[in-house]
Amino acid sequence: MKKIINQPGDVVSQMVKGLASAHADILAQVPDTQVLYRTVETPDIVGIVSGGGSGHEPSHAGFVGKGMLSAAVSGEVFTSPTPDQILEGIKAADNGAGVFVVIKNYTGDVMNFEIAQEFAEAEGIETAAIIVDDDIAMEDSTYTAGRRGIAGTVFMHKILGYYADHGKSLSDLKAIAEKVNDNLKSIGLALTAATVPEVGKPGFDIANDEFEYGIGIHGEPGYRREKIKPAKEMAAELIGRLKEEFSWSAGDRFAVLVNGMGGTPLMELYLFWNDIQEQLADEGLEIDFVKVGDLMTSLEMQGASLTLLKVEDTDWVQALQAPVNTAAWG
Amino acid sequence: MKKIINQPGDVVSQMVKGLASAHADILAQVPDTQVLYRTVETPDIVGIVSGGGSGHEPSHAGFVGKGMLSAAVSGEVFTSPTPDQILEGIKAADNGAGVFVVIKNYTGDVMNFEIAQEFAEAEGIETAAIIVDDDIAMEDSTYTAGRRGIAGTVFMHKILGYYADHGKSLSDLKAIAEKVNDNLKSIGLALTAATVPEVGKPGFDIANDEFEYGIGIHGEPGYRREKIKPAKEMAAELIGRLKEEFSWSAGDRFAVLVNGMGGTPLMELYLFWNDIQEQLADEGLEIDFVKVGDLMTSLEMQGASLTLLKVEDTDWVQALQAPVNTAAWG
Repeated sequence: MKKIINQPGDVVSQMVKGLASAHADILAQVPDTQVLYRTVETPDIVGIVSGGGSGHEPSHAGFVGKGMLSAAVSGEVFTSPTPDQILEGIKAADNGAGVFVVIKNYTGDVMNFEIAQEFAEAEGIETAAIIVDDDIAMEDSTYTAGRRGIAGTVFMHKILGYYADHGKSLSDLKAIAEKVNDNLKSIGLALTAATVPEVGKPGFDIANDEFEYGIGIHGEPGYRREKIKPAKEMAAELIGRLKEEFSWSAGDRFAVLVNGMGGTPLMELYLFWNDIQEQLADEGLEIDFVKVGDLMTSLEMQGASLTLLKVEDTDWVQALQAPVNTAAWG
Repeated sequence: MKKIINQPGDVVSQMVKGLASAHADILAQVPDTQVLYRTVETPDIVGIVSGGGSGHEPSHAGFVGKGMLSAAVSGEVFTSPTPDQILEGIKAADNGAGVFVVIKNYTGDVMNFEIAQEFAEAEGIETAAIIVDDDIAMEDSTYTAGRRGIAGTVFMHKILGYYADHGKSLSDLKAIAEKVNDNLKSIGLALTAATVPEVGKPGFDIANDEFEYGIGIHGEPGYRREKIKPAKEMAAELIGRLKEEFSWSAGDRFAVLVNGMGGTPLMELYLFWNDIQEQLADEGLEIDFVKVGDLMTSLEMQGASLTLLKVEDTDWVQALQAPVNTAAWG
């Protein structure tokens, strides 16, 4: 294992210190926790909290800041944060109007976030939550009952952050989040595996000429392994799967995220987007918003995912476009 | 070779199309070129042009936009753009007040950019240039006489873009650029090699337990190879080299860039920054600005570089902090 780290067990705590130090104008660390919260004054608005295992940076702390998340909770690498840490995040995000919690659909995350919500309610903080399950690649998987939550979660953060900033209530946000989640679908592929520092070897073996469709952001198995092929054929497979899910018609409007898994050069992501946009245009779809970059990663894994959000409400586009002040949403 | 590409020879042209499509609100492609220019109106200000070989994304096109670059010229991977392409970039950047050109110090880049400047002058466009040579690792190297230009170049873009936006003249910018370059020093390390698509295999061999100090952004040799060691020892080596160059004193003020080479997880960059900031604090230095991220990459290379800019003019901090509208400077 070659990494720029000290002791494998210290990776997350040292990263959190680094994040707090690098972005001291935006966020701060809740002392003695792995929670980062936004320091800008946000009176009277609903707080938005997200988090999960570390190793997906810039998710989730990179999206803490005005207009997006109020706090992010970082568990150990690929491991859910504990309920007490999540509770600290909820408390740090609370402005008196309740706290909305964004959970990616993994069994450990769902359990621990829901326990933390109970703790918070016991302390008098009203909460609501969405469980994001945008990954259409698999039903049930390692760590998950149902579909996994992956890169589409970042669109959820952005849209909810916008509405929270505009004064929407906890119940308003719950309704928006459910509608967004119903229209949010992603699917990925991977060329290489990530190495968790405390494990010290790649999470799976894959040949030097193979890639796999549908691999999860923790290296969970996908649905088909093939010999490496041109990007436009990879794009066609992902788009074909998404088309089955959406049953779209020409003229339908979408927001798109082409997300890198951490080890894939940005050059390839833009090239991949170029293939994707040509094929979406051939389908007659209208693209109202596009984002290309490493937003929900899997350590140094090479690969990418494609997220489509069907724009059922044109305000969502405005929500995605609105400027924010965070480390990672440009 | 496993990459998300189509034909290796089409990588750059397809990436440029993808960039133009993804950021159509900020920039556009000069037809039939690999030049991207900012579409926002910029009357009467000096244009800033940069570029070089591709494979360093988001450099340079990711920094095109209001407040930073006026145009970026992408050569083939790790290959200087041709003078005629650079000329197109200069013409696209020209607002009538002349064009300032930022060149990284590689023999091919210097030659081709200078020829392009001559072409532009012949067409009546006044130009000036800076050759950035911030990499203190090596004197002379593959492709370079003198010191190489690496990640510090992004600070140069940001500072010059700010001053151009504030109406500075070509000669003002030349003086600022020289002063910035004199105070701008970087040094890197790599854990793995990048694979140029048209070559199809890694640019150098390195053992599974080794890393190398001083490797360039095209995989040029560095100055010492060692067994992998803790991040804080890597940081101490880079800071020690920079200290020799700057001969700093406690209380000196710096701006810092911790730059990822493309394949290193953001988690490791923030952890590395945490070690760096502790050691800079031990030196008694004051840090006025910090940026952590993949800004000047080498395809999928794993590694990082550390750039320090000694703040000889406090306006430089304001220049670095000023908001911009680009794809990649957050």
